Amino acid sequence: MNSTYQPDPRLDLTFERIVDVPRELVWKAWTQPEHLMPWFCPLPWKTIACEIDLRPGGNFHTVMQSPEGKKFPNSGCYLEVIENERLTWTNALLPGFRPAVLDTTCGDEEVQFFFTATIELAAHDNGTRYIATVIHGEEAARKQHAAMGFEQGWGTALDQLVAYARKM
Amino acid sequence: MNSTYQPDPRLDLTFERIVDVPRELVWKAWTQPEHLMPWFCPLPWKTIACEIDLRPGGNFHTVMQSPEGKKFPNSGCYLEVIENERLTWTNALLPGFRPAVLDTTCGDEEVQFFFTATIELAAHDNGTRYIATVIHGEEAARKQHAAMGFEQGWGTALDQLVAYARKM
Repeated sequence: MNSTYQPDPRLDLTFERIVDVPRELVWKAWTQPEHLMPWFCPLPWKTIACEIDLRPGGNFHTVMQSPEGKKFPNSGCYLEVIENERLTWTNALLPGFRPAVLDTTCGDEEVQFFFTATIELAAHDNGTRYIATVIHGEEAARKQHAAMGFEQGWGTALDQLVAYARKM
Repeated sequence: MNSTYQPDPRLDLTFERIVDVPRELVWKAWTQPEHLMPWFCPLPWKTIACEIDLRPGGNFHTVMQSPEGKKFPNSGCYLEVIENERLTWTNALLPGFRPAVLDTTCGDEEVQFFFTATIELAAHDNGTRYIATVIHGEEAARKQHAAMGFEQGWGTALDQLVAYARKM
């Protein structure tokens, strides 16, 4: 996968926007727990915990909390860390690149799936060109991720990131 | 995961040996298809195809063939590539870091599982200190891998590598 990556519409979800904050601030908001937690979940959901070990194989862990107080932990590891340019992580591997195990025993609403996500940042006249790409292993996972509101969710989170970055 | 990694006996398999060939040749034997195919499968099995794109996210693909002529393809991608020192790959991700999908529909004998493998090479008075570590997501996968003859298989393959490297 590189910057000339052509998404596969059957398996991938992408999201592109120009945002009016410098990419150094977007990078900071994605890579430092205290700057990630304020924007990472579309409100009224909250991110109540975050651990980041910013290197390939390093831990990326968050805990989201629903308005009803239910906690949703997310574990994964980083795969590519190129400062201010490119951040890739997956939930298919845990820290130390250990294969994750799909939790298929959870309740009706949550069916877990594996994905790898990349955030690409490029300088732009108006700030930053922001591209998020999420790739899956099978069409069902892409469909499920889309049905969970990928585009709206990541869009709202990015709005929150931009509003937060303007105050940084 | 780094060189001070302490294996977890519940989930990991390790294999360590001193071999009397320089680590540059061991590296070459692991990273160039024409130098990998001659030793990679314990005889009378054969490696009949190999593709290597030696970078994180790059393709590592082999096809093994049983004495009866049955073909077993293996797909994965590299995670860490540190020349002459450390090579890590996984079958939990395909090239481009795309999550792999477990094939649970195959015959009785083959039940697929995910693993991440690391080969560590260090200079040693007698040649090379060679450590292979294979990590799994659950105990059942480690047990299955062990029952498939991990230690004997990797040992025989390493004997073949050494014999081949001496002629390189």
